[in-house]
Amino acid sequence: MSIGVGIIGAGIMGADHARILAGQVAGAHLVAISDADEARAKSIAAETGAKRGVNDPMGLINDPAIGAVLIASPDATHPDFAMACIKAGRHVLCEKPLAPTAAEGLKVIEAELSTGRRLVQLGYMRRFDPGYAEMRQSLQSGRFGEALAMHCVHRNATAPSYFTSAMAIVSSCGHEVDVSRWVLSAELTSVHVFKARRSKLSHFDDPMLVVFETDKGQLVDVELFLNAQYGYDVKGELVCETGTVSLMPPADTVVRSTLATSTGLAPDWRPRFADAYRIQNQAWINSIRSGSPTGSSAWDGYVATTVTDAGVKSLETGQTVQISYEKKPALYA
Amino acid sequence: MSIGVGIIGAGIMGADHARILAGQVAGAHLVAISDADEARAKSIAAETGAKRGVNDPMGLINDPAIGAVLIASPDATHPDFAMACIKAGRHVLCEKPLAPTAAEGLKVIEAELSTGRRLVQLGYMRRFDPGYAEMRQSLQSGRFGEALAMHCVHRNATAPSYFTSAMAIVSSCGHEVDVSRWVLSAELTSVHVFKARRSKLSHFDDPMLVVFETDKGQLVDVELFLNAQYGYDVKGELVCETGTVSLMPPADTVVRSTLATSTGLAPDWRPRFADAYRIQNQAWINSIRSGSPTGSSAWDGYVATTVTDAGVKSLETGQTVQISYEKKPALYA
Amino acid sequence: MSIGVGIIGAGIMGADHARILAGQVAGAHLVAISDADEARAKSIAAETGAKRGVNDPMGLINDPAIGAVLIASPDATHPDFAMACIKAGRHVLCEKPLAPTAAEGLKVIEAELSTGRRLVQLGYMRRFDPGYAEMRQSLQSGRFGEALAMHCVHRNATAPSYFTSAMAIVSSCGHEVDVSRWVLSAELTSVHVFKARRSKLSHFDDPMLVVFETDKGQLVDVELFLNAQYGYDVKGELVCETGTVSLMPPADTVVRSTLATSTGLAPDWRPRFADAYRIQNQAWINSIRSGSPTGSSAWDGYVATTVTDAGVKSLETGQTVQISYEKKPALYA
Amino acid sequence: MSIGVGIIGAGIMGADHARILAGQVAGAHLVAISDADEARAKSIAAETGAKRGVNDPMGLINDPAIGAVLIASPDATHPDFAMACIKAGRHVLCEKPLAPTAAEGLKVIEAELSTGRRLVQLGYMRRFDPGYAEMRQSLQSGRFGEALAMHCVHRNATAPSYFTSAMAIVSSCGHEVDVSRWVLSAELTSVHVFKARRSKLSHFDDPMLVVFETDKGQLVDVELFLNAQYGYDVKGELVCETGTVSLMPPADTVVRSTLATSTGLAPDWRPRFADAYRIQNQAWINSIRSGSPTGSSAWDGYVATTVTDAGVKSLETGQTVQISYEKKPALYA
Repeated sequence: MSIGVGIIGAGIMGADHARILAGQVAGAHLVAISDADEARAKSIAAETGAKRGVNDPMGLINDPAIGAVLIASPDATHPDFAMACIKAGRHVLCEKPLAPTAAEGLKVIEAELSTGRRLVQLGYMRRFDPGYAEMRQSLQSGRFGEALAMHCVHRNATAPSYFTSAMAIVSSCGHEVDVSRWVLSAELTSVHVFKARRSKLSHFDDPMLVVFETDKGQLVDVELFLNAQYGYDVKGELVCETGTVSLMPPADTVVRSTLATSTGLAPDWRPRFADAYRIQNQAWINSIRSGSPTGSSAWDGYVATTVTDAGVKSLETGQTVQISYEKKPALYA
Repeated sequence: MSIGVGIIGAGIMGADHARILAGQVAGAHLVAISDADEARAKSIAAETGAKRGVNDPMGLINDPAIGAVLIASPDATHPDFAMACIKAGRHVLCEKPLAPTAAEGLKVIEAELSTGRRLVQLGYMRRFDPGYAEMRQSLQSGRFGEALAMHCVHRNATAPSYFTSAMAIVSSCGHEVDVSRWVLSAELTSVHVFKARRSKLSHFDDPMLVVFETDKGQLVDVELFLNAQYGYDVKGELVCETGTVSLMPPADTVVRSTLATSTGLAPDWRPRFADAYRIQNQAWINSIRSGSPTGSSAWDGYVATTVTDAGVKSLETGQTVQISYEKKPALYA
Repeated sequence: MSIGVGIIGAGIMGADHARILAGQVAGAHLVAISDADEARAKSIAAETGAKRGVNDPMGLINDPAIGAVLIASPDATHPDFAMACIKAGRHVLCEKPLAPTAAEGLKVIEAELSTGRRLVQLGYMRRFDPGYAEMRQSLQSGRFGEALAMHCVHRNATAPSYFTSAMAIVSSCGHEVDVSRWVLSAELTSVHVFKARRSKLSHFDDPMLVVFETDKGQLVDVELFLNAQYGYDVKGELVCETGTVSLMPPADTVVRSTLATSTGLAPDWRPRFADAYRIQNQAWINSIRSGSPTGSSAWDGYVATTVTDAGVKSLETGQTVQISYEKKPALYA
Repeated sequence: MSIGVGIIGAGIMGADHARILAGQVAGAHLVAISDADEARAKSIAAETGAKRGVNDPMGLINDPAIGAVLIASPDATHPDFAMACIKAGRHVLCEKPLAPTAAEGLKVIEAELSTGRRLVQLGYMRRFDPGYAEMRQSLQSGRFGEALAMHCVHRNATAPSYFTSAMAIVSSCGHEVDVSRWVLSAELTSVHVFKARRSKLSHFDDPMLVVFETDKGQLVDVELFLNAQYGYDVKGELVCETGTVSLMPPADTVVRSTLATSTGLAPDWRPRFADAYRIQNQAWINSIRSGSPTGSSAWDGYVATTVTDAGVKSLETGQTVQISYEKKPALYA
């Protein structure tokens, strides 16, 4: 039986999700798309075959034809929409972050806890990227012994003009926080942010090097470089006792031309993680049918915010910052 | 509106198609799966959520709830099932080959011509492989000038015990015949088969080198090696006037271990072309909705058989064999 | 004790050899460089520290301070200079080809045979390329079973304006003839040349595909493309019963820039085979001291000419041409 | 004119240097090899054609037939031998480190300063590795803007049983200290050492992450992992404003075998840096002839020791440590 899906937000991410759900995911159909710009909602609805485009997120959440809601609206609206969905008993795939602050995130968690079941999945799509999944599986196979360290690189071609150093940590590094915890099955306990020489092409501290320690003693280092100019590039290497596993950047062809052999790089994260988004959205639909939640939880969203808040403090003080968390509820065990 | 699909054949390929259609393709639902082994049909139906598993291909074809039929039954049955589908007005995705002989293939074409519209798509899935698609697009972009030659390698870990040299050409080389014609937008006009030193691990002529010429004067050479032992490996390089484009074998991670840096190879064609199968099946469903057929046609199936028949003749005679075709009907222009 | 070396020919190759011998090879010192253009000879002598630059090849050959002569003069002069060296008892490293015709090559062989010892090494430098050497060693290790086929690609950015289709086979394909025989420890017994679509940027048949068979039943195919525009590119893959070994094109760095990850390609053969030339020249000097000749012999030079002559015949007739050789003298066993 | 060379130390490194100088370097000849184990000295002398093997380093230094001395004896003896060479007016290639302590290193510098000319080259061979050289050249070309950060990885298969965490920093990280200063044309101003989870296969802190800052504000991070088991592996990536340049690990062939495509890794640093050693030793001989010193100086050796001493302090305290240097003499400008 096909799941009726509603999407809140018809911006770049919401529109992409609509196309993925309508064109690449089995077992779902789009019922409604809501956006503050109703014309945009209608346009994406028409393109993707959704029944209607509206400017009515609460109506969408409470529509009985809709069993699952994908939240891709502005960050600040995430917690309220998520809580409304929980109240209405809707399954939720919420684009990251869960909430602008850890405190707001905890409210969503309380709401979810009060229902006694997991309804919320966070859109940290990298857990569904075949590369990270294979990296994690390699570790769990025991083939290379224990994991000791993980190197990450996160580069964007250009950052939006409103970005700040703190936003680089909160917004971009959140992905590495989530996926390194998942790959390592570990929690991050401290963070130290180093500023590199600032690129003339950036208006904030860029690049930076962020060094985390985990509760297993592992190191996770992340180069954040959001105005790297040359393209979108994500690298990862898991260092284990007898071998290492690195992400292979996706490329379909190799070109020989003008004195070089080359493979292409994506201009932004959407083509780079196209498989991850598709697999994530399919897994979300499947999890609704099967009842077994998958992917990042609301708790993982709270953790990401808590870690990146500590990162911002380290950025400001230049010191190593210890990270502390609320007690993890059993629902998220 | 979701398309009701029936599948004929619940063997390896039929079962895979059922899983893909049920789990990875938007806009379709499985109605029935038919197999000579009814228990197997029922088992795959249960696994994939198809309404029923049967041993009744003709009943399936004529079921009004089924708008599209995927034929994955033994090769010899393809033309009869395809013609029954055409008669019933069903859209067809037929696993290759179209027919065991060119003559039988022409009968399917006649049946399709009599309806005045294209209903049959052949399962040459490589046209949907992102690598071949990018290769073709690179050529069409004009960026590298005209295509002059294409090198292909087709290796399997092991061939079935019943395989013969002729079957290597007919069955395996058929993929290169179809995809090289598509990439080059050209027709193959001659073929010359060379036998290499036979591997001690093979019971037929293996490897072989097949050299085609096209109506544009291009060369297409294919190494066929069906007992290559080390894995499934498909390579392709398009040689143009100012550059070349090669397939990049898919790999998600790079491992460093025991004095080597390595990426994995697939054991057989299914993981190697998993994306191609998914994209093909989605394109098939989409084409039914849009009315614009895509992928290989019945005519392409006839051509593949004609070319590989000529290849077998070259294998037997050691001579270059010229290839001639029936006149191409306008429907396939 | 250092070997006194004379070089005949101060063109591109002679000058390169002078620089290599003077700057990268142990155990040798340059005594004289001779060229029809005496000023050029003097200029290269000054640059490389050779005692003198002259226009007197016979004087150079007979100079008692010179124990070894490197012949890098125009092709047509090779046999006469080689025979003069043999007569004077000089060790010779002769740039390929040994002689313009097989008949002239046989005269050099007769001269060498009359001395009862090997004095002549041919400059087929690929035998000293670390990649080909590792490929051969992999085969001889038995790790992958028997060799069954070998794929070669030989591309230049642009061919000289005086080149013809026949010269492409004689001059360029000679390298593949020599190195494939050496890697496979086999003799080539037939050849079939196919013309590809001619590049608009070439004034002769370019590219071509040359298919050889060996006395062990192996196939060796060579793509010759001498106006490939994008750079100098040599590829090789040895196909064995349980695995394959390919050349890795040398590159020192990987660049990420403007939406691509790339490695550089050489503009011509000299940087690509810089290691091979250096190792060849060192091995030549070492072999003079040790008395054990290494590298390609005069006989190998005769074979290369015989094979490429057959290739030209196949080019002209479009037929497979069988290759026959004189009986191989024991000296070259 | 050929330079007479003496080698002090016939251990692994001394023997390798003897083979390189005798067999791969133009313009030099081995006169004597000295070792505390005279038999070993004689054995290596016989193998490499050196005139004699002795146990008399001071006699070797003062031998008038010897113009240049390569010091490859135990670390603690380096400064005394270097100073004796300076006193005797010999050119020196001294294996790293210059001295066990910065204070001892300064004595060598004083001795060299008193001669008014540079005689000492330190054996930081990576400056001659084609990869690092190309990386530096890429930066200096300005093609990618300014350098902002550099990522380094230094892995050995296994560390000697006597190694300690401090030795890992002093001995292994010294290479990254020298080469990053050279690539960046910058001085390191602070260091922070992080301990990763310790491998069960190591008896000291292993791996570690060392983060340096430079006087240009750049970050240099180094993963040190000396019991990485899988092989010797050195990685480097220079991050610039519009692109990055990474080392390409040398490999001559690519193997396809048992479900993997792979390239080999070196078991230790000697094959990995074989080109670097050869080019370094040739450059040393050339610099003696030309009078223009090249490579790392005694000052660079003092700096390396000073930086790694600060690294050891950071390891012990867990804090960022600022690095201060003596004033750099004009001789080393």
